[in-house]
Amino acid sequence: MVIELNASVTESNDRDADAIRKEMKEKGSLLINLMSSPGSGKTTLLSRTITDLKGDLNIAVMEADIASDVDAVKIENLGATSIQAHTDGMCHMDAGMTKRALDSMGYDGKDLIFLENVGNLICPAEFDTGAGLKVMILSVPEGDDKPLKYPLMFEQSDALVITKMDTLEYFDFDVEKCKERAKRLNPDISIFPVSAKTGQGMDSFETWLKEQVGIWKS
Amino acid sequence: MVIELNASVTESNDRDADAIRKEMKEKGSLLINLMSSPGSGKTTLLSRTITDLKGDLNIAVMEADIASDVDAVKIENLGATSIQAHTDGMCHMDAGMTKRALDSMGYDGKDLIFLENVGNLICPAEFDTGAGLKVMILSVPEGDDKPLKYPLMFEQSDALVITKMDTLEYFDFDVEKCKERAKRLNPDISIFPVSAKTGQGMDSFETWLKEQVGIWKS
Repeated sequence: MVIELNASVTESNDRDADAIRKEMKEKGSLLINLMSSPGSGKTTLLSRTITDLKGDLNIAVMEADIASDVDAVKIENLGATSIQAHTDGMCHMDAGMTKRALDSMGYDGKDLIFLENVGNLICPAEFDTGAGLKVMILSVPEGDDKPLKYPLMFEQSDALVITKMDTLEYFDFDVEKCKERAKRLNPDISIFPVSAKTGQGMDSFETWLKEQVGIWKS
Repeated sequence: MVIELNASVTESNDRDADAIRKEMKEKGSLLINLMSSPGSGKTTLLSRTITDLKGDLNIAVMEADIASDVDAVKIENLGATSIQAHTDGMCHMDAGMTKRALDSMGYDGKDLIFLENVGNLICPAEFDTGAGLKVMILSVPEGDDKPLKYPLMFEQSDALVITKMDTLEYFDFDVEKCKERAKRLNPDISIFPVSAKTGQGMDSFETWLKEQVGIWKS
């Protein structure tokens, strides 16, 4: 299923975002805004997470993209509820767009809903989508200097997942230096180095997700 | 040297861009707008290109970033003229910002000037900077599906450089499929698979750059 979205007419994005958060809290559905560069492995991470957690949590995924529906097709093949949102050229999702995607998909009884934002390390960090948590991905091939260059997303995120850890030996990426740079911007950020391909580190990330769903519902 | 920029007040970005192009044509300086995702290897590609071509061309680089000056420092260490432009949170460069960066840096006698745009596969494609040519980078770890997801930049670019070719065996990246997808969007695009690390393919890209400078000056 594909939905065409364009920027919300309302100027009160923050108010709309708060309304979404309130509703999701009442329903006990944790909405996570998942942000990263293009090609950092968002869909691969989600695919593994859905497969690993499907006995524990009822999960849905909203895929936001400028064009194409390749990601939603992958997620649907795993048996999870999914919707593809086209952003009409927009480089980020806002609260109004998120609400329209939620309504089109339907989300009753979902414990955990991922909004896979448009692949972009800049603009998505500037718009509140109404999510309860923000998670960002940085992949090893992108380099450990990204917190220096794109500080806002690191400042805003509750968790940082460092993906493609299985490729560490081929790239000049210093995990400790990256963690230190992220923590300097955001001392409270949780950091999970993982490989969705080999499974390395997925346990800690998935345990954290289950804890966060528990906290959200309490 | 660092310059702080913010969005141009003028609404006539296209007119400003045309004025830059006209002036650069008169001066015989080819300005190239270099665009890509964060971490695709723009600075590494430029470093290798400058080192290889410094006997043939007088090259300058304008580094646009939201924060940090790590890239400009790298370029200056190669002995090339360089300036770091901070975009004040902006996710792209426009024509007015480009002009202010050019004027602050100085560009008399330069054959080739690279504008290393903000790392972003979306917004920079929407703004004419006044460059004579647009070159985009896609790195192997980002995946061969990017033309499907971010078509505008592929449509707009004169050349596509596929970087990090030395990592091909570790990623599921089909070079032919990627080329075919890019050519479907833009039949005239020149495509250069390279590794700036091993030097593979750099010759063809650099020969193309020298040809383009010759055409621009004629």
